Amino acid sequence: MTSMKRHCCMALAVSGCLALACGLAFAQAGEDLNKMSLDANQWVIPLGDYHGTRHSKLNQINDKNAGKLHVAWSMSTGTLRGHEGQPLVVGKMMYFQSAYPNYVYAVDLDNIGKMAWKFAPEVDKLAPPVACCDLVNRGVAYANGKILMTTLDARVYALDAKTGKILWTVQNGDPKLGQTMTGAPLVVHDKVIVGISGGEFGVRGYITAFDLDTGKLAWRAYSVGPDEEMLFDPVKTIDGATQKPVGANSSLGTWEGEEWKLGGGTTWGWYTYDPQLNLVYYGSGNPGSWNPTQRAGDNKWSMTLFARNPDTVVAAWAYQMTPHDGWDYDGINESVLTDSRIGGATVPTLTHFDRNGFAYLLDRRNGKLLAANKFDPTVNWAERIDLQTGRPVVVADKMTKEDTNTKDICPAAQGAKNMQPVSYDAKTKLFYAGTNHICMDYQPFSVKYKSGFPYVGATVSMFPANNGDVRGRFIAFDSVTGQTKWAIDETFQVYSGALSTDGSVLFYGTLDGWFKAVDQATGKILYQFHTPSGIISNPITYMHNGKQYVAVLTGVGGWAAIGLAEGLTQGTEGLGAVGLTRSLGESTNLGGTLMVFSLD
Amino acid sequence: MTSMKRHCCMALAVSGCLALACGLAFAQAGEDLNKMSLDANQWVIPLGDYHGTRHSKLNQINDKNAGKLHVAWSMSTGTLRGHEGQPLVVGKMMYFQSAYPNYVYAVDLDNIGKMAWKFAPEVDKLAPPVACCDLVNRGVAYANGKILMTTLDARVYALDAKTGKILWTVQNGDPKLGQTMTGAPLVVHDKVIVGISGGEFGVRGYITAFDLDTGKLAWRAYSVGPDEEMLFDPVKTIDGATQKPVGANSSLGTWEGEEWKLGGGTTWGWYTYDPQLNLVYYGSGNPGSWNPTQRAGDNKWSMTLFARNPDTVVAAWAYQMTPHDGWDYDGINESVLTDSRIGGATVPTLTHFDRNGFAYLLDRRNGKLLAANKFDPTVNWAERIDLQTGRPVVVADKMTKEDTNTKDICPAAQGAKNMQPVSYDAKTKLFYAGTNHICMDYQPFSVKYKSGFPYVGATVSMFPANNGDVRGRFIAFDSVTGQTKWAIDETFQVYSGALSTDGSVLFYGTLDGWFKAVDQATGKILYQFHTPSGIISNPITYMHNGKQYVAVLTGVGGWAAIGLAEGLTQGTEGLGAVGLTRSLGESTNLGGTLMVFSLD
Repeated sequence: MTSMKRHCCMALAVSGCLALACGLAFAQAGEDLNKMSLDANQWVIPLGDYHGTRHSKLNQINDKNAGKLHVAWSMSTGTLRGHEGQPLVVGKMMYFQSAYPNYVYAVDLDNIGKMAWKFAPEVDKLAPPVACCDLVNRGVAYANGKILMTTLDARVYALDAKTGKILWTVQNGDPKLGQTMTGAPLVVHDKVIVGISGGEFGVRGYITAFDLDTGKLAWRAYSVGPDEEMLFDPVKTIDGATQKPVGANSSLGTWEGEEWKLGGGTTWGWYTYDPQLNLVYYGSGNPGSWNPTQRAGDNKWSMTLFARNPDTVVAAWAYQMTPHDGWDYDGINESVLTDSRIGGATVPTLTHFDRNGFAYLLDRRNGKLLAANKFDPTVNWAERIDLQTGRPVVVADKMTKEDTNTKDICPAAQGAKNMQPVSYDAKTKLFYAGTNHICMDYQPFSVKYKSGFPYVGATVSMFPANNGDVRGRFIAFDSVTGQTKWAIDETFQVYSGALSTDGSVLFYGTLDGWFKAVDQATGKILYQFHTPSGIISNPITYMHNGKQYVAVLTGVGGWAAIGLAEGLTQGTEGLGAVGLTRSLGESTNLGGTLMVFSLD
Repeated sequence: MTSMKRHCCMALAVSGCLALACGLAFAQAGEDLNKMSLDANQWVIPLGDYHGTRHSKLNQINDKNAGKLHVAWSMSTGTLRGHEGQPLVVGKMMYFQSAYPNYVYAVDLDNIGKMAWKFAPEVDKLAPPVACCDLVNRGVAYANGKILMTTLDARVYALDAKTGKILWTVQNGDPKLGQTMTGAPLVVHDKVIVGISGGEFGVRGYITAFDLDTGKLAWRAYSVGPDEEMLFDPVKTIDGATQKPVGANSSLGTWEGEEWKLGGGTTWGWYTYDPQLNLVYYGSGNPGSWNPTQRAGDNKWSMTLFARNPDTVVAAWAYQMTPHDGWDYDGINESVLTDSRIGGATVPTLTHFDRNGFAYLLDRRNGKLLAANKFDPTVNWAERIDLQTGRPVVVADKMTKEDTNTKDICPAAQGAKNMQPVSYDAKTKLFYAGTNHICMDYQPFSVKYKSGFPYVGATVSMFPANNGDVRGRFIAFDSVTGQTKWAIDETFQVYSGALSTDGSVLFYGTLDGWFKAVDQATGKILYQFHTPSGIISNPITYMHNGKQYVAVLTGVGGWAAIGLAEGLTQGTEGLGAVGLTRSLGESTNLGGTLMVFSLD
């Protein structure tokens, strides 16, 4: 790469220039990573591959022998808070990150008794108090001999994958303003793409690309605000709902006054990438405060899926799932890129299980809505998503407003699915998803912004759907037809990612600490093991020396188990998400541990 | 039990009366516990039985099949500091305690997915700063439907074993004075017997018996001081070394001035009990400061084994192992009660592997020294223990003195064995012991006492014996002959307890996190598993629903791994015990987890 080309990209970003100048000059790193991700022996991208399928072609462990799984080895992460990530396996090396204070470990799989290295960043102690939902982390990325990671205090690090030494580090936000980082980076070409958290602190969300080699800022795109800060092209950027150009400053007019400056739309979820289309897919979170009354309008582009060319930087399209949110239905969940059969044709689609309880099927070329099906039967805030307008048909009774306690809204703010990523098996054409089965009462109230303080403005009480004993379901779901093939009921939210494999066996974990292998065909439990702590992370699989392993981090916490994480389990029935899992402390304890399973 | 009898005992204690009045009135609880401990399906006493053998008659897991062991289930303790204890199994219930903040868990083995109860005491935050050597705990005791436990802030609790509810609680020391508690209680008859920690804070040690039903103080016996506070009888209490009565105020004259008031002799180790002799055995720790120059004399009865009748309260005998200590060779290690063949006769003995590197064999009826053999080949502070005088023949070069750095003393202060308890198999007549293989440089300096502040007065640097790569050995040892049958070398101190079984398989763990099953005959490793964290605790075994399990707490820390526990691993070569394990952080992380193993 030449410095001229780099300057070109920087200029684009800084000036808001939207022309397509940088092209594919730096495609090499991305191409390698894509190729590496096709080697099922490894797990080189947080979601398994660029398409985010979390599916492995390994089949040594299968539906016939999964009952004979055992723990092969284990390793404490030395921390107690929520672990929402997963290990990477690159060659014979494993890399994984703990919850705050965000240790990163490298283990040579030929010598598990000793760490190849450990990286213990100095994390600003201002960060934990402004982290909304426990002190979680979703893992490292790998590219070109580097480990890329984020820390709660909104720093990005590139480490030498061999030594753990810092190659560069850069600040991507300011904890004093409520900006934190919990997400895994996605590396595309020579860019390290990261999001930002802080939706409950009035943070205006953005994604940022840093140069893989130097850490220099390449570009930054806000989720709301003027076009030049969103890197939107009024003509070329398409509104997925209308399939028309978004027009000039499509965000600004959808807010009252300058509320967009506190506009939320943070970007703390998972990112996927289509190498053919050269588009990165990601979502934005809740708009500003949780009180819809104080922010009239659609509040674009909060609650939105974006497709963005990582080189030209321009957004190809944007599709807003929940205009004028009144429920905190962040749109940050992953978009899984698959081919779908629609009306006899094969369409390059994305499937996105949204917090709001609908599984969206979009044409990923242009954001056109193809289907939107409820994946939890209790969803009642909207009748349906109108395929013509692309907008939800909101049930008037379930729209929240200031100082009114709207009751029995499903799903709860924590979503019918939160960040726990699904898996997709192209053979069955089914998605496997850990989901939540929870509802809420929601009362917004007026809130004033103060820098670095919570900017929420709603009192929420969550409870199990139908006030039953089931708070989560692990489901096999068809995003084209909306059919649920089978579902496994769980006491608590299934806040773990799913893993599917060519062995016709699926894996997930439960909030109360069981790690389970499931018959893909029937949903029958083939194996379960009581791990040290609850699981809110994402199993992976890899092959080492001819043997297949499945690895998962245990370590309960996150929003799902915020009461346990913060020690608030006593006398908290009905307090936000805390009451929802009040009894969880009777079943599991905090504690970050890597657990690795194999056959004998 | 009548209130009159209780008053009688209290009066004895308060007045220092030494008459034999209370007798065996309350023997029922103790008899039950002894009987229960003979049922190999359970593990009802911290050391397995009153004799402290840590040997189980179970043999379902044996030297033929131990290679097929697997992890059956696991459970985080929710804490990160050192775990030096072990679970108890009473019927189908398991009970165990975490490191500070000393959570206690009850698990119904028929339903491991849910805790029967959890007890989270409020522990005074003044305690951690005055804990000498990490924030460890050595586990709970059981008796008569109660769980007895101690907390770091020197409280004793009796909990209802069914519900975890507090039945009584009592303060046994004051953290403001440096008094803490880390040990497991021993229940004998209707007494809960506990020790005290704080040897590095000028604490004058004592053991205390509380009434099992009420928590009322029954008696307290100091390790040093006037007879009436030590509960010594000048005539009836025998000096084990001389086999003569100790005489009046045998402690006071062995100190300079009033130094005895800061006389140490804390009692933080393991206790054993002989139901036939009705004697409790325990040891005392280092005398006052670590600077021998400022406390002339033998400093009795620091570094001493005591035999004490728990009902009459009087000490039957006392044997001082390390008079006028200059090395911090605390005498608190467990005394295992066995029969030994001595000169053709069967003698009721105790075997005590002392910190000072000698394995003492005493006649446990009278404290008479029968043998004292070096169990680590490097021991060099004393040539031998003179069997006539009962005193060590100290190597003059290795006696420390103020402001002189005495080099290459073996063992180091941490001892050739620390608190990690041994096991004994009556069939092989061998002891199995995790030992340390470490030496030190030791420079005493003058120190002034200030209440609640460290009262140490020595700069110590520890290192591996022979400056090699072996810091610990797991050995099979004959305490009568002094022969080591075999030894397994380990990189780090073997700070885990030993477990032997009738399956001819032994169990122990390593500081870097490996749990190992060993062929009793040969010392060959039959199975090893990489647990979440380093092991400084003590494996136990039990039978549940016809299946044998082996359980161990992982959770590195303690004095052995104080650098890792306190986060002091960088740039600390040669700093006390810290430098000794500077590299341990490359192999393991903090994290308390119960690991339970079984065959398929």
